[in-house]
Amino acid sequence: MKKANKKITAAIIIIGNEILSGRTQDINVMNLSKWLNQLGVKVEEVRIVPDTEIAIVHTVNFLKKRFNYIFTTGGIGPTHDDITSKSIAKAFNLKYGKHEEAYKLLENYYGPKNFNVGRRKMAKLPEKSTLILNPSSAAPGFIVKNVFCLPGVPSILKSMLGGLKNKIVGGKKILSKTINLSTLESEIAKPLEKIQIKYKKLEIGSYPFFKKGRVGVSIVIRSTNKSLILKCLKDIESLIKKKFN
Amino acid sequence: MKKANKKITAAIIIIGNEILSGRTQDINVMNLSKWLNQLGVKVEEVRIVPDTEIAIVHTVNFLKKRFNYIFTTGGIGPTHDDITSKSIAKAFNLKYGKHEEAYKLLENYYGPKNFNVGRRKMAKLPEKSTLILNPSSAAPGFIVKNVFCLPGVPSILKSMLGGLKNKIVGGKKILSKTINLSTLESEIAKPLEKIQIKYKKLEIGSYPFFKKGRVGVSIVIRSTNKSLILKCLKDIESLIKKKFN
Repeated sequence: MKKANKKITAAIIIIGNEILSGRTQDINVMNLSKWLNQLGVKVEEVRIVPDTEIAIVHTVNFLKKRFNYIFTTGGIGPTHDDITSKSIAKAFNLKYGKHEEAYKLLENYYGPKNFNVGRRKMAKLPEKSTLILNPSSAAPGFIVKNVFCLPGVPSILKSMLGGLKNKIVGGKKILSKTINLSTLESEIAKPLEKIQIKYKKLEIGSYPFFKKGRVGVSIVIRSTNKSLILKCLKDIESLIKKKFN
Repeated sequence: MKKANKKITAAIIIIGNEILSGRTQDINVMNLSKWLNQLGVKVEEVRIVPDTEIAIVHTVNFLKKRFNYIFTTGGIGPTHDDITSKSIAKAFNLKYGKHEEAYKLLENYYGPKNFNVGRRKMAKLPEKSTLILNPSSAAPGFIVKNVFCLPGVPSILKSMLGGLKNKIVGGKKILSKTINLSTLESEIAKPLEKIQIKYKKLEIGSYPFFKKGRVGVSIVIRSTNKSLILKCLKDIESLIKKKFN
């Protein structure tokens, strides 16, 4: 896999009224972000938008210029509320219609007799888009320039990521280290801030947790620079010793 | 509770590197959206942004003019990465500093001896902001105009919603009806589209599900108009009879 020397960024667009209404809890953000981290791509923004052409077109056009990669999820199925393909065509000013490769693939999967109107809709894509193959249920995703369109069903989405690796040029892998402490955030806030000031280039997060009656804080250090993470980790460990021993 | 006659909308801003990195799966969108539905407030956009002042200020300023209510989650704790209060002050061009009411409340909760620098930080808010009381752990949220700032920990956030009801003027309650069918989306796509065309004012969503080896489709109808939902429901039921009997 090719690697870039600079930071590579992504935004995710979750398309779906069912997420906005609270009917469904999203999990694609977490799955996509973890996968992209591994490839050295940092997710810097997520937007959840309704199933309307205006929202999709506007959001895609705004974000595609600002991030290296855009991933959309949802809206590529056979029903009337699946309007991602048509909206992406509009965003890029491309024709929307029968995609020969997708058509053949779906016709072959379902058989000519069962290739009904709903299924044929899934072969309508922005012209010249590159297919993202779907090992779960054949219906493909697609790529237009830097925009990758994936389905909303989490298990199907995950099954399609394997085939995408060679389509993405990532930067350095983003590493993270977590330390769990049996303390309260307020107890370590001041010294932790000093450590963040010392290590400006590291992302240091502090997250309270409540697990099985135990209260604690997870400190998470994130960076592409392993030796800097380890140096910072030592500083945090000596801070803990000073504070609690 | 007061009720508005027009549609009332909201946007949610999830503030947190831990969500963008995939470390934590968000659940606040679902909880907030469901609660707002009950009040007749429709969530129309969600953005997940990093813990940076520039991202928070920009996002708040863009969205606060476009939606009736904005809810932010995260970043109001005691540590260096909690910068929501300061950023909201900046977005509204307000002073950021000691909030007398919050200070007294926190000092009273922790006791003067344990009211350390980390905890005192949680009493620093945009000037004149209205507090959102926190029955779980005292640290308050706050309101500036139409922007409501809540914590990121889901259980604490939920415990704070009860006290907010009278601060929100909602529209008509958004109702929804779900029909689960043992079919495939592609089988019902065409007739369902016709029903959506007939009932332009209803939001009709189609969602495939896979539960315990069973494949099916949930059709969800959403609207503030109950009689229209019931009429549409009848049409869908007769469509099903025609199709599968």
